[in-house]
Amino acid sequence: MLIIGERINSSRKWVAPAVENKDAGFIVNEAAVQLAAGANYVDVNAGTFGPDREPELLCWLVETVQGAHECRLSLDSPNPDAIEPALKLHKGKALINSISLEKARYDNLMPLVRDHGADVIAMCADDEHGMPTDLETKLMVAGALVEKLTGDGVPLENIYVDPLVFPIATDSAYGNVVLSAIEQIMTRYPGVHTMVGLSNISHGLPFRFQINQMFLALAMGRGLDGAILDPTDKRLMANLITTNALLGRDEFCMDYIQAHQSGKLDLD
Amino acid sequence: MLIIGERINSSRKWVAPAVENKDAGFIVNEAAVQLAAGANYVDVNAGTFGPDREPELLCWLVETVQGAHECRLSLDSPNPDAIEPALKLHKGKALINSISLEKARYDNLMPLVRDHGADVIAMCADDEHGMPTDLETKLMVAGALVEKLTGDGVPLENIYVDPLVFPIATDSAYGNVVLSAIEQIMTRYPGVHTMVGLSNISHGLPFRFQINQMFLALAMGRGLDGAILDPTDKRLMANLITTNALLGRDEFCMDYIQAHQSGKLDLD
Repeated sequence: MLIIGERINSSRKWVAPAVENKDAGFIVNEAAVQLAAGANYVDVNAGTFGPDREPELLCWLVETVQGAHECRLSLDSPNPDAIEPALKLHKGKALINSISLEKARYDNLMPLVRDHGADVIAMCADDEHGMPTDLETKLMVAGALVEKLTGDGVPLENIYVDPLVFPIATDSAYGNVVLSAIEQIMTRYPGVHTMVGLSNISHGLPFRFQINQMFLALAMGRGLDGAILDPTDKRLMANLITTNALLGRDEFCMDYIQAHQSGKLDLD
Repeated sequence: MLIIGERINSSRKWVAPAVENKDAGFIVNEAAVQLAAGANYVDVNAGTFGPDREPELLCWLVETVQGAHECRLSLDSPNPDAIEPALKLHKGKALINSISLEKARYDNLMPLVRDHGADVIAMCADDEHGMPTDLETKLMVAGALVEKLTGDGVPLENIYVDPLVFPIATDSAYGNVVLSAIEQIMTRYPGVHTMVGLSNISHGLPFRFQINQMFLALAMGRGLDGAILDPTDKRLMANLITTNALLGRDEFCMDYIQAHQSGKLDLD
């Protein structure tokens, strides 16, 4: 299970000033707490500052986080002018968040993904359908995207298909649609990965963390192997560890027992 | 989702004296808290008192609980001499917990199930395989049991197949085995139900309620529509309500929102 820590995002109002003013201490600490909580990647996003400042600030985020922590980053931008210099600075294999089948976005980002051997989040979106909400269209776009990326030389195992999560408050079918999409994508393309932006599911409902916590377990039960989330949500991480044990991904329940011994399960 | 409250069971050491001494106040209250917490059925079990006393005590439990509450009961015994008089006293459609393909048990209980039009929990066990732990044998026994029961005149919709849950502490594959069994039983016999004794999954591990809570969600995600559990575990019930919403079984998330408004989600 690949966990991307979502907190360093300039759309968060308490993060934006730290990015804008290059407050390295704040950013290094935000990365530290996420890594300590179990994140495998740290997402970095400076998208709210516009095309003039984003490249410089995204590069500063890469240098700042990797200067303090040995970790991989999720470079979170649709803008190739920000992604390209950030990729050059990034140490190790980066994750690009994200490509889609939208022609301009695909044509600009695919060469960077391929030439840097990066992992990539591939959103089920294209110019014709926008961001589809129904299962059939999601699967059609997912299939076309996987085939186009692999045809262009991106290895299947570098691709994290994002079926796009929409709020169950809008339509109570949206949960099942995404769960079925995850299962079918994982079945149809053995070796590919799936990834969700977890918190979209709970938009518009009270106690969003409760919805997010249970949705992660349900999605893992259908094959999900990646998620963008806030790893400092302790119950979410406890549930993730427990779900891994229940799904047979934790030999002798050792991770579960260790989590118990270190107090990660005892939250009430 | 059918919820059977498991608490009135003479194998629980704080319950046994109340059954033995016919402490009606205790039993009525145990039923009340489970019904208030969301149980659809109340399980009653007097199995630890042996064949001489079980029939009398099981009948007393039926009269005591149904004398105070309008509810259906799960008559929990393999003993036809206890089930038969208890069925006669029971008001409404009873649930018999449980039959199996073991010949003596089947032959003794099936006519009672059929003639009373009762619901029945059908355990995946037979004389040849005992209680199988592997998926293939579970499915074979489940199929034979469903076919035999329906062939003998028990309607499919009265059958709750129990695939038998074994602890993941014993074998880390046991979680996946049961989850797959649930999905395949529900797919192969449309209209049948599935039922698990939830807490078996966590035997031998610390923080058992955490395992139980997540296992219920995963099993519901694969089609489970019945469980024997302790409904006074508030987080378990909050998770159940949340999972129903995520699986599209809660139009406009009304149950979820109502649970929030009545404080059933705010547990920390």
